[in-house]
Amino acid sequence: MKPKAVILLSGGLDSAVMLYYASDKGYDCHCLAFDYGQRHKKETDFSRLIARKAGAKFTVFKLDLPWKGSSLLDRKMALPSGRSPLKIKGGGIPTTYVPARNTLFLSAAASFAEAIGARAIFIGAHYEDSSGYPDCRKEYLEAFDKVIRLGTKAGTEGRLALKYPLISLKKSGIIKLGQKFKAPFRLTWSCYNGGPKPCGKCDSCVLRAKGFKDAGIKDPATS
Amino acid sequence: MKPKAVILLSGGLDSAVMLYYASDKGYDCHCLAFDYGQRHKKETDFSRLIARKAGAKFTVFKLDLPWKGSSLLDRKMALPSGRSPLKIKGGGIPTTYVPARNTLFLSAAASFAEAIGARAIFIGAHYEDSSGYPDCRKEYLEAFDKVIRLGTKAGTEGRLALKYPLISLKKSGIIKLGQKFKAPFRLTWSCYNGGPKPCGKCDSCVLRAKGFKDAGIKDPATS
Repeated sequence: MKPKAVILLSGGLDSAVMLYYASDKGYDCHCLAFDYGQRHKKETDFSRLIARKAGAKFTVFKLDLPWKGSSLLDRKMALPSGRSPLKIKGGGIPTTYVPARNTLFLSAAASFAEAIGARAIFIGAHYEDSSGYPDCRKEYLEAFDKVIRLGTKAGTEGRLALKYPLISLKKSGIIKLGQKFKAPFRLTWSCYNGGPKPCGKCDSCVLRAKGFKDAGIKDPATS
Repeated sequence: MKPKAVILLSGGLDSAVMLYYASDKGYDCHCLAFDYGQRHKKETDFSRLIARKAGAKFTVFKLDLPWKGSSLLDRKMALPSGRSPLKIKGGGIPTTYVPARNTLFLSAAASFAEAIGARAIFIGAHYEDSSGYPDCRKEYLEAFDKVIRLGTKAGTEGRLALKYPLISLKKSGIIKLGQKFKAPFRLTWSCYNGGPKPCGKCDSCVLRAKGFKDAGIKDPATS
């Protein structure tokens, strides 16, 4: 029997590649997506499509946060727009930062993983071509892995660990890896806005476009 | 203006003492309780009473876990009953362990703390007279503090930290501290069962009774 793994899915490119990577490594993949009050439902819709395409299990966890504090949650706040990749990298932590988001997601993943007896949790975080979120850094993920190993029954028994194999890759490297695994880029959604098409101007669209350009690959979702 | 703090409230004795301790230290206390599918609603009901008595703010976060894996969540599982304090301590991690519970609670507290600009998160965890849950150990809490410092905006800016001042106390010590602060023991609920009165037989009732006995104080909630 294949070992189980929990895969955090956001509907975006990185986590889709993560799923195909984990599947390639022989894991029985249980995807976990979150409805946490984000601006649009595309994240969970696309996550479902990606999981189905990969033949993986899929669960949505509704996290009804009684607080906001992010332009991704609060429609009264403006989203950054039209920033260059350089400006995004040098601009500090942007308003799209959601308070402790990856910590919330990873804690749910840890609980889910224990409940189903999974051996690993995969997160597709990377920092090099990201928006500068502190919870996408390697030292943060190392600290969370320690939380799992010290604070869960499965972790203390050496049966559960956090994996983040994309952490040191650039966006273009993740795209190349995804191409190798035949990850369905067409079924991924990166745009912070929930329009009929990606806006092309939000930080997430800008970083995605740069990634495909650097990789020398055409983005099937926008072309 | 007083600095804000988030206090994790469970309706039990330890977190009530924690609240009075933080209040004594001069914090503007924002209590956070969880409706996470536990067997009964007494935890949130008593938490509300305690927060009101202390004049603190109060928020309930509904965590609708799509999985179980604990006798505190799954009514088809039996609760341990009639165990001596010695047996509880030596019995390993019991079925009442909820997968990654404190990690879930602390991640929500971190998110809430950032959203309201709190400077500290207080958790009343202690290990000496506990049920042996791994997420009540000092090394776990140290690891989670690191997660906050590395993975949140407020933490990276040195504006948020985790506090667990009861960690090295025995239950009797916590009760004595609570007496000093005039914490309302009468308004606390420890029993894992949700009957009209505490059952007196579950691990939590047994540890509470031992604590009051060791402290030489009468428990107003059971007498």
